[in-house]
Amino acid sequence: MAATGRTAAELEERLLAGDKRALARAISLVENDDPEGWALVREVYPHTGNAAVVGFTGPPGVGKSTLIGALVKHAREGDRDVAVLSIDPSSPFTKGALLGDRIRLTEHFLDPGVFIRSMASRGSLGGLSEATLQAALLMDASGKDDVFLETVGVGQAEVDIIDHADTVVLALMPGSGDSIQALKAGVMEIPDVIVVNKADHPLTDTMIREIRGVLSLAPQRGWRVPVVRTEALRGEGVAEVAEKLAEHREHITAEGTLEERRRRNLRNEVMALAMWRMRRRLEEEVAGDAEVQAMLDEVVKRRLDPASAAARLLERDTRD
Amino acid sequence: MAATGRTAAELEERLLAGDKRALARAISLVENDDPEGWALVREVYPHTGNAAVVGFTGPPGVGKSTLIGALVKHAREGDRDVAVLSIDPSSPFTKGALLGDRIRLTEHFLDPGVFIRSMASRGSLGGLSEATLQAALLMDASGKDDVFLETVGVGQAEVDIIDHADTVVLALMPGSGDSIQALKAGVMEIPDVIVVNKADHPLTDTMIREIRGVLSLAPQRGWRVPVVRTEALRGEGVAEVAEKLAEHREHITAEGTLEERRRRNLRNEVMALAMWRMRRRLEEEVAGDAEVQAMLDEVVKRRLDPASAAARLLERDTRD
Repeated sequence: MAATGRTAAELEERLLAGDKRALARAISLVENDDPEGWALVREVYPHTGNAAVVGFTGPPGVGKSTLIGALVKHAREGDRDVAVLSIDPSSPFTKGALLGDRIRLTEHFLDPGVFIRSMASRGSLGGLSEATLQAALLMDASGKDDVFLETVGVGQAEVDIIDHADTVVLALMPGSGDSIQALKAGVMEIPDVIVVNKADHPLTDTMIREIRGVLSLAPQRGWRVPVVRTEALRGEGVAEVAEKLAEHREHITAEGTLEERRRRNLRNEVMALAMWRMRRRLEEEVAGDAEVQAMLDEVVKRRLDPASAAARLLERDTRD
Repeated sequence: MAATGRTAAELEERLLAGDKRALARAISLVENDDPEGWALVREVYPHTGNAAVVGFTGPPGVGKSTLIGALVKHAREGDRDVAVLSIDPSSPFTKGALLGDRIRLTEHFLDPGVFIRSMASRGSLGGLSEATLQAALLMDASGKDDVFLETVGVGQAEVDIIDHADTVVLALMPGSGDSIQALKAGVMEIPDVIVVNKADHPLTDTMIREIRGVLSLAPQRGWRVPVVRTEALRGEGVAEVAEKLAEHREHITAEGTLEERRRRNLRNEVMALAMWRMRRRLEEEVAGDAEVQAMLDEVVKRRLDPASAAARLLERDTRD
């Protein structure tokens, strides 16, 4: 059902007033790529920029959802309004396991000061990434003090999403060696705060030593990356994580790097949105176009090379 | 130095004859985004499609280079010509560690039947990914029987590169738990062959059990993913890996899926090349354009939303 002009204005008003159902509806519009959703983001955009946006990354299974759940509880105790946006991977055969994680957040479902939403990576990752960022803007506009973005995995798509956060947390657990190797090899960006969860594991000290070793190799910045140990399930160490998040925010505000980050992030977002639209336009043109299919056949038969085929595609695009 | 028409034809001839120096020069042209490089790929493209292209992925530190070095040795014993293309991560502060890995391949440097090349992810990942694929085509055209693509990390950029292989190997070692979690969560595609390297580790059996558990959850395909244990440094298990690679190739050839894969890969490559060119055109237009900078300022000041800014960028693009 498309909303009329009147209901669109109503939705905007309720969203800005912090109404949870209005926020949920607005995010659905964005997720379904409804033009009304984009229009809404456009209208409320001047009311954004107030939330502290924190991105959480790290391999699946380390307890990110549990950590976020504990941080939400902590924020509520300080009377802060919180929104959580989780990005689920697309695999159909393990949905159950990940939904199990999600359940840890359900204790907050009835709290009007907490908004929780999952987005599935159904379509192209580019599209998901853009929808995520639009959803985060809507959460910001609805007056949330904290917006937590959670991704699964540590790939490029996750980086694109996390890059739009003011503060980035990498969550690890003893035994998640790949991530440390990736940090060491420079494949993964150095985060702002590192959390070692499930810290009751006997190998925790070894791991923290290893992390500090990697950090000591990284180029020195003004901010010294803290490594916090937590047992999120029991709430251990969570207050310290919250403190480090607040400290990081103060640091980047005082240093002026918050403005710099946001400028860079917004620039990247504009470019990503432009590219995403171009890609979609191209995909639409290509799908089912007999001429393009014939051209691809030529490529498969090794008669036309991929770069020349790409150039022809672009020429067509300009011609239209 | 730009080559004249005559030297371009000479380069092509020498490349097709399998000359190592010609191949090295051709790849440099592609890497430097020299139009002559693209022209060369166009010319030799009809001579591609014969090599068995195998992609190796997995976290840094598991010994991928050692494994590939051992596979190269094995291939040479069977008198096969081999090319290896390694993608290095961009971090400046850990180059040493990774170059150390590379050294394990140096014993083959003087063998005319082996060609080894590293490409650094200097520029945009899109650009690197495209250059990599062009380089792989050049290796194929120069008559190599096997082309091994090695990437560091398991992110999206690596997936893009690895996706163009006929066979994908995931290399792990006991303790690299993140990758198994990522497989389990469906963040990572199921590879065709899994190698557990450094299999003298006491936790090897546990890990193999875990991997088999994940594989049993995955949707069944015609090919049963083998899990091979190796100690690549001592050559243990390497012949078995080579055997599994050959078996996989036979399987996809017999089933007709090799053609299917290549068709899909080539289609993706054409799209990726088109997008990469569009992105570059957009980036060039945006850089240093006062009008665009002023527009971005409006976005930072929350007066203009990112999606509207992106739409304006695209309109400009169409206008030009």
